[in-house]
Amino acid sequence: MVRIALGLEYDGRNFCGWQTQSAGCSVQDALQRALTSIAGHPVEVVAAGRTDAGVHAAMQVVHFDAQFDRPASAWVRGVNSFLPDSVAVLWACVVTQEFHARFSALARSYRYVLLNHPVRPALQAGKAGWFHAPLALEPMHEAAQLLIGTHDFSAFRAAACQAKSPVRELRSLEIRRDGDRILFDLSANAFLHHMVRNIVGALVYVGKGRYPSHWVAELLQQRDRKLAAPTFAPDGLYLSAVQYADEWGLPTSQRIDL
Amino acid sequence: MVRIALGLEYDGRNFCGWQTQSAGCSVQDALQRALTSIAGHPVEVVAAGRTDAGVHAAMQVVHFDAQFDRPASAWVRGVNSFLPDSVAVLWACVVTQEFHARFSALARSYRYVLLNHPVRPALQAGKAGWFHAPLALEPMHEAAQLLIGTHDFSAFRAAACQAKSPVRELRSLEIRRDGDRILFDLSANAFLHHMVRNIVGALVYVGKGRYPSHWVAELLQQRDRKLAAPTFAPDGLYLSAVQYADEWGLPTSQRIDL
Repeated sequence: MVRIALGLEYDGRNFCGWQTQSAGCSVQDALQRALTSIAGHPVEVVAAGRTDAGVHAAMQVVHFDAQFDRPASAWVRGVNSFLPDSVAVLWACVVTQEFHARFSALARSYRYVLLNHPVRPALQAGKAGWFHAPLALEPMHEAAQLLIGTHDFSAFRAAACQAKSPVRELRSLEIRRDGDRILFDLSANAFLHHMVRNIVGALVYVGKGRYPSHWVAELLQQRDRKLAAPTFAPDGLYLSAVQYADEWGLPTSQRIDL
Repeated sequence: MVRIALGLEYDGRNFCGWQTQSAGCSVQDALQRALTSIAGHPVEVVAAGRTDAGVHAAMQVVHFDAQFDRPASAWVRGVNSFLPDSVAVLWACVVTQEFHARFSALARSYRYVLLNHPVRPALQAGKAGWFHAPLALEPMHEAAQLLIGTHDFSAFRAAACQAKSPVRELRSLEIRRDGDRILFDLSANAFLHHMVRNIVGALVYVGKGRYPSHWVAELLQQRDRKLAAPTFAPDGLYLSAVQYADEWGLPTSQRIDL
């Protein structure tokens, strides 16, 4: 028995989310089918982050157990030949049995790509969120500072969220303009369900001047999802990195061309 | 009667090319259907560049004649509401009857996006070409210098090319690395059919060391398509700009997030 970790990239538009479904339409289903073909036995994978339908990954990390070891090229090129065009394994490496893609992860990073332009995306349809009116970055940046730290994020949590605790440590939240796009880069120990999309929604309300920056601090305190802004579209959301302790020996190379 | 120019963006994966087809599957067909809905009469458009199936546009320019003028918002937001997600009108403006999207164009620019990484694209599937092995940019840059200028580009011309003359003026050809991608930016008075994809194919042959830089000068001289490299995939090709004289008064704003 050997435990393998994989890094993978996918376009979430073509899947019904990460997690396995009876219809077999998830990224996990596609990956497990391809891995089973190479491993020669049924394979179940565990992922660092269970992305929703329409959410993309520039770097998702998973682990699984195989009965026999194979060269890394089998787990990369071999598996890719069985995967649909919109998902690819970027790297594979053997890890110890103690490694767990979800529980060993120290932090997750997400990027939200927002097209801020009067005309909706076409080239980037499904790959970027959209807001048509001008947004002021300075108040959004001020609001972001109020969200950083360890807080009860109940106001930014989906009703369906299954996490036991609403407390998360948001370690960084950077906002910058890149041409007509605004990029939001967030890093936390872990995220609640819809947390990034709800934070982006609140920051857009601040950016368009509907509320002042300190409104997000009030939201945090009130812990009431109903008072916050609408959940932004999944289109612009990318799981961009998962951080692990160096001792696990995972590759740190990225391939992010968002 | 009023002549209108439009700038538009599209994802070529969802169309059978620019030019109208009886099946109605082209970008031109989709645009003409949407324009007809707003104009209230059949509309025929003329484009600066007739892109192939799978080729994208960050900026295509077209013109058409309408019986009645409408506010610019009708030609942008109104038309966009009738267009599929993968194509959008970016701007509209009234031009004189002398303006012709194709014949008034002074130059066209194309970008080819090549993912240069051992693993095929997934997030960028259909939006980037792919070459798996390392490429040396310096010899590619040297070869590019030999292609710049006014030449007979028969060696880089598709067999089906309908242009009367194979002579074109390639005004610039810049190659740069951007993370794991190589970006090729080409500008010419006009391009032959498949010319960009054939030039990229030849430059990749030079970059991987199969031929020295000066091989492209020999290709030019021999004027024989059969001696050149394979045509690269349409996936990475974008019509990125069309240049007109300032007197036409077209917007110069771009929205390129490739």
